[in-house]
Amino acid sequence: MRELIKKEQWVYPTAGLCSSHVQGNMIILPKEWAFDFLLFAQRNPKACPILDVTEPGGYEPANIAPGADVRTDLPKYRVWENGVLVDEPLNVIEYWRNDLVAFLIGCSFSFETALIESSIPIRHIENKSNAPMYITNIECARAGRFNGPLVVSMRPVKHEKIPRAVLCTGRFPSLHGAPVHIGDPAAIGIKDINNVDFGDAVEIREGEVPIFWACGVTPQAVLMKSKPPFAITHSPGHMFISNKKDADYSIL
Amino acid sequence: MRELIKKEQWVYPTAGLCSSHVQGNMIILPKEWAFDFLLFAQRNPKACPILDVTEPGGYEPANIAPGADVRTDLPKYRVWENGVLVDEPLNVIEYWRNDLVAFLIGCSFSFETALIESSIPIRHIENKSNAPMYITNIECARAGRFNGPLVVSMRPVKHEKIPRAVLCTGRFPSLHGAPVHIGDPAAIGIKDINNVDFGDAVEIREGEVPIFWACGVTPQAVLMKSKPPFAITHSPGHMFISNKKDADYSIL
Repeated sequence: MRELIKKEQWVYPTAGLCSSHVQGNMIILPKEWAFDFLLFAQRNPKACPILDVTEPGGYEPANIAPGADVRTDLPKYRVWENGVLVDEPLNVIEYWRNDLVAFLIGCSFSFETALIESSIPIRHIENKSNAPMYITNIECARAGRFNGPLVVSMRPVKHEKIPRAVLCTGRFPSLHGAPVHIGDPAAIGIKDINNVDFGDAVEIREGEVPIFWACGVTPQAVLMKSKPPFAITHSPGHMFISNKKDADYSIL
Repeated sequence: MRELIKKEQWVYPTAGLCSSHVQGNMIILPKEWAFDFLLFAQRNPKACPILDVTEPGGYEPANIAPGADVRTDLPKYRVWENGVLVDEPLNVIEYWRNDLVAFLIGCSFSFETALIESSIPIRHIENKSNAPMYITNIECARAGRFNGPLVVSMRPVKHEKIPRAVLCTGRFPSLHGAPVHIGDPAAIGIKDINNVDFGDAVEIREGEVPIFWACGVTPQAVLMKSKPPFAITHSPGHMFISNKKDADYSIL
């Protein structure tokens, strides 16, 4: 699949691809900003669980995918200058610099597989759409020059299956883990559940409760607020597919 | 207790003090080395679970102990130059510099409380001695200029209580977590179990098995190998006592 993506023969979201393989969000920053971001991730581990960090100037995520290339092996990228989105290319070869450090960050696709296997269906997967994501009023812990709000993804779950959904995702603490909020969108600053900040809205049916998990798009909201001079991220939904399996990150 | 320590009225090991409060190992490095160390910790989370990181030049571990001072609130320090121990003072006010970053790292004292509460006695606590610690042949994952061997602590456990000891400590993944090895010292490069590298040896009795956990003294072995020009650590056993409770870090 990474070969197809590298050849730009797959330029679509990666949800559902290579089932049971861990996928990753990505943010790339100049080395001069890397300590602040790594500290931000350490202080906000539910939103930013680190899977891998490349050497400065290196583009191989050697821990999770030896031989891969973060400049070409994601289907779509976003390029940011001073917190503003300036390009959305299919590779970032021309943007590459010798001082860049790439951070690969856990993704909810992993626990979605676990939820489905536990008979908890995922509405946005049934709809073949992107997960609904919201910017909350929960402030992340600041680290150096980085601060900003927590972004969450939402999945409607039937009342009686909430405990199972909590346990099931809590098994993956390094892939966002247990929910950060259950039930009341307004309590975390979401005024209109049908008005998403990223991804696509989904229906919440009778007897279902919206459950919110910390989301790996958080670094993009933080970029917009903290405005580093240069950054590259994945385009939401267009993730890095690693060699690791979900089970490698399960604690039970 | 931190007040007494600050006044240098307690200059001894902290084992058993402030039971159920999380204690921390510490390593302080110049900012120029901080990214490499934070990455080392991220790549070796069992040995170096980060509890807190101070702002450069700051000495307050605001996450785990607001108002505390890492320059004075540990009973004994070690000062290192180029990987060589040069001093073991009771405070580091005179060594402080505006570019220093302090890392507080989880400590096995937390899970020892959990073991004792699960009827698994700890020999070195019964002996009122320091835990036996060994430099292994397990290489830590390298990060930038930091590399070196994993240091482990050892506790003898009765055969029939091994599963309970694993589950009991596995509940604290950010405080070293489950053991890294069970049973065969030679398999991890320990030639003579009675010849410790840090701390004090303990007897292994008939029907007991040596169990090894990743140890927060690992950064000191890594310092000796990686030789940063300047560093400060706690003196083994003389830890930082935080405001956090063990239960704050339990996943179950």
